[in-house]
Amino acid sequence: MKLIFHQKKDASGTKELLASYVVHCKKVINDIDYRMPEASLCLPSDKKIETEVLNLVEKKITTDLKYNIVIGIGGSNLGTKAVYDALFGSIDYITPDRYPKMVFLDTIDPKVNDAFLHFVDTHIKDASEFVISIISKSGTNTEPVVNAEVLLGHIKNRFSNWKDRCVIITDIDSLMWKEGLRLGIDLLSIPKQVGGRYSVLSPVGLFPLAGANIDIKQLLRGAEEMRDLCVENSSENNALNSSVSQFLSWKQGKSIHNSFYFHPELESLGKWYRQLMGESIGKEQKGITPIVSIGSVDHHSMVQLYWGGPTDKTTEIVYSQKSKDCIVPTEQLFPSLSETSGTNTSEIITAIQKGTTSAYAKQSQPYFEVVFNEINEYELGAYMQYKMIEILYLAQLMHINALDQPQVELYKTETRKILANK
Amino acid sequence: MKLIFHQKKDASGTKELLASYVVHCKKVINDIDYRMPEASLCLPSDKKIETEVLNLVEKKITTDLKYNIVIGIGGSNLGTKAVYDALFGSIDYITPDRYPKMVFLDTIDPKVNDAFLHFVDTHIKDASEFVISIISKSGTNTEPVVNAEVLLGHIKNRFSNWKDRCVIITDIDSLMWKEGLRLGIDLLSIPKQVGGRYSVLSPVGLFPLAGANIDIKQLLRGAEEMRDLCVENSSENNALNSSVSQFLSWKQGKSIHNSFYFHPELESLGKWYRQLMGESIGKEQKGITPIVSIGSVDHHSMVQLYWGGPTDKTTEIVYSQKSKDCIVPTEQLFPSLSETSGTNTSEIITAIQKGTTSAYAKQSQPYFEVVFNEINEYELGAYMQYKMIEILYLAQLMHINALDQPQVELYKTETRKILANK
Repeated sequence: MKLIFHQKKDASGTKELLASYVVHCKKVINDIDYRMPEASLCLPSDKKIETEVLNLVEKKITTDLKYNIVIGIGGSNLGTKAVYDALFGSIDYITPDRYPKMVFLDTIDPKVNDAFLHFVDTHIKDASEFVISIISKSGTNTEPVVNAEVLLGHIKNRFSNWKDRCVIITDIDSLMWKEGLRLGIDLLSIPKQVGGRYSVLSPVGLFPLAGANIDIKQLLRGAEEMRDLCVENSSENNALNSSVSQFLSWKQGKSIHNSFYFHPELESLGKWYRQLMGESIGKEQKGITPIVSIGSVDHHSMVQLYWGGPTDKTTEIVYSQKSKDCIVPTEQLFPSLSETSGTNTSEIITAIQKGTTSAYAKQSQPYFEVVFNEINEYELGAYMQYKMIEILYLAQLMHINALDQPQVELYKTETRKILANK
Repeated sequence: MKLIFHQKKDASGTKELLASYVVHCKKVINDIDYRMPEASLCLPSDKKIETEVLNLVEKKITTDLKYNIVIGIGGSNLGTKAVYDALFGSIDYITPDRYPKMVFLDTIDPKVNDAFLHFVDTHIKDASEFVISIISKSGTNTEPVVNAEVLLGHIKNRFSNWKDRCVIITDIDSLMWKEGLRLGIDLLSIPKQVGGRYSVLSPVGLFPLAGANIDIKQLLRGAEEMRDLCVENSSENNALNSSVSQFLSWKQGKSIHNSFYFHPELESLGKWYRQLMGESIGKEQKGITPIVSIGSVDHHSMVQLYWGGPTDKTTEIVYSQKSKDCIVPTEQLFPSLSETSGTNTSEIITAIQKGTTSAYAKQSQPYFEVVFNEINEYELGAYMQYKMIEILYLAQLMHINALDQPQVELYKTETRKILANK
């Protein structure tokens, strides 16, 4: 993975502001007790967690597995869905015979619940065909508790060994942890200081991903190598360069960050980053609104606004160098329409991406490029780790605490009142 | 459908600015020759188009149909996908036995193309199982032409009657129209003055939707009744109220419009509106950036930013009064965690929606509510028609031409150069 910056801003003064925090983050890596607020930085090299997860995968998951079900919302599923969709999920609808498939139950939706219970009744024959990860850091979020009660209540009589097919992933000593212990359900813990949106490389992401045949060792290695690069005061530090670039754009009034992916399968990765950026730096009336665009879908939807509308955005253009091959036939059915006979379709989309980059350059709107070698576990791990450190640095520059989310309680209080009075 | 506004702004002066344009739009309805720029307003009551579409559906589509494939991008598929996903598509992954299913080929993606060609080889046995709509207003967009060449090139030897399974939907006399005529493929035309993002109620949306067992008569009736309400200078005119409210917010510096849907199946409807708003009013350095949120997924992702970050957003809260039933079991597996035993899950999501609305009110951020009676064809038609007229009015207030998209050519020029020199 490489990053390419085009702005000619004098960033060195801003980089210096981060110098001591970069040193601090490097120290955190060795905090094996996860005491520091930035303790998620320890995850990529935590062999204990990696082994614990892989042992549980070996115990629970056989080649019979068809449905790897994740009950969780926000930080408990966005990272997992990002990686799964990038590799398999985005084409699940046209690869119906590939297993295991992941199914994500996040919000409470009666239409989804109803359809899924029927699906379970009609498509799951044996308990070995499914595994259910119930994930909640606090262990008390309404949505995962309700989804778990609905699903487990429905299947518990049909599959007497349903408890063996579940894993609970939560903080040690949360109420959910205790319920898991009481019921004899397998448990994995999330290190206390690792918040939901920084937890994809903890058991939260690792267990369900490993159960979906995703190489979590490669995911972790990509993250680890990127992390080690991103805690050095060097010109190669992607997170430092990127946070400084975003900070300077923000100071110039760019209030929106546009993640522009040229691969539709990365849309969920954008949604993961949306939470990471939104929740980490959206406070004290400050913040940048993250949006996600897909090339070339949004060329036919949002690009008019991006280039003709207000200049309030910083754009991150993300693409991969390697991609599958698919050739346009040389014998054309619509000869008058097409100049692409015999072309590999990846060349066409690359041309659109280059045309886009060039159009951004001509309009002097701030943008930078993130180039994947290819879309695989190693590169996804590297990207996610780069982004998590970038946000820590950006928050530091904006004088914001990247690790809390004080406003989220607002609606919960109101909602509880309403449910209590219904 | 009803709209609920909470702002106490003095809007009457602004409404007056639109009075004569409202009268103009009412006149356009009778423009059976589609000569006026706003001619898309004629579509809901155009019986000729409705009949033509339904006749072709009757000719092409039998109960054998399994895959209703749409090749199109931007205005050629976003509206269709919005309606299909709202009714069926969002749960296709857990209703594998329900047919016909729609498949959307929009951008050129080698991974999708490769998987889909394999899918066609392995899952389609007979030509009656599929129908392909090739949709492009101009008839020359790269993406649909390439996707059509790739797919048709792959199947034409296997299904000798492949031409019978295709429909081309484009402007009369476009190059694609002429190719269709030459090949003997069935054609439907798009009225000249109806632009892509206003075309969902033309054959662009109607043919593929009707082929997916969606009641387009109800869709059109919902749109027609809403349209007739929205071209009156009355206090019941939703489009007028909504455009004035959004305009006043924009003048106060709200640069982002957040469509906050409390039903995950409406996410694609949000993406349709994203194009409608983005492309229609994003020009001359003006514009509002549309974003889409899903309750309660984004309560665990973006709400911190919305309530703790900059106050740069207007929020539209959309929910339906009726929804499916799904009951949380009374016998709880995690008794210490849950206060929702025996509750219908739609009550829980309604409580979250009310809690959210109440939190917006307390923070005095501008918001309004759109309440569907239920999510069905009639209401979807009404919502989409309301939105299309709202955008016409909003553009008028902002002194912007809602019907062109001058910047979209920017990358096309660059892309063509790159492809020519490869």
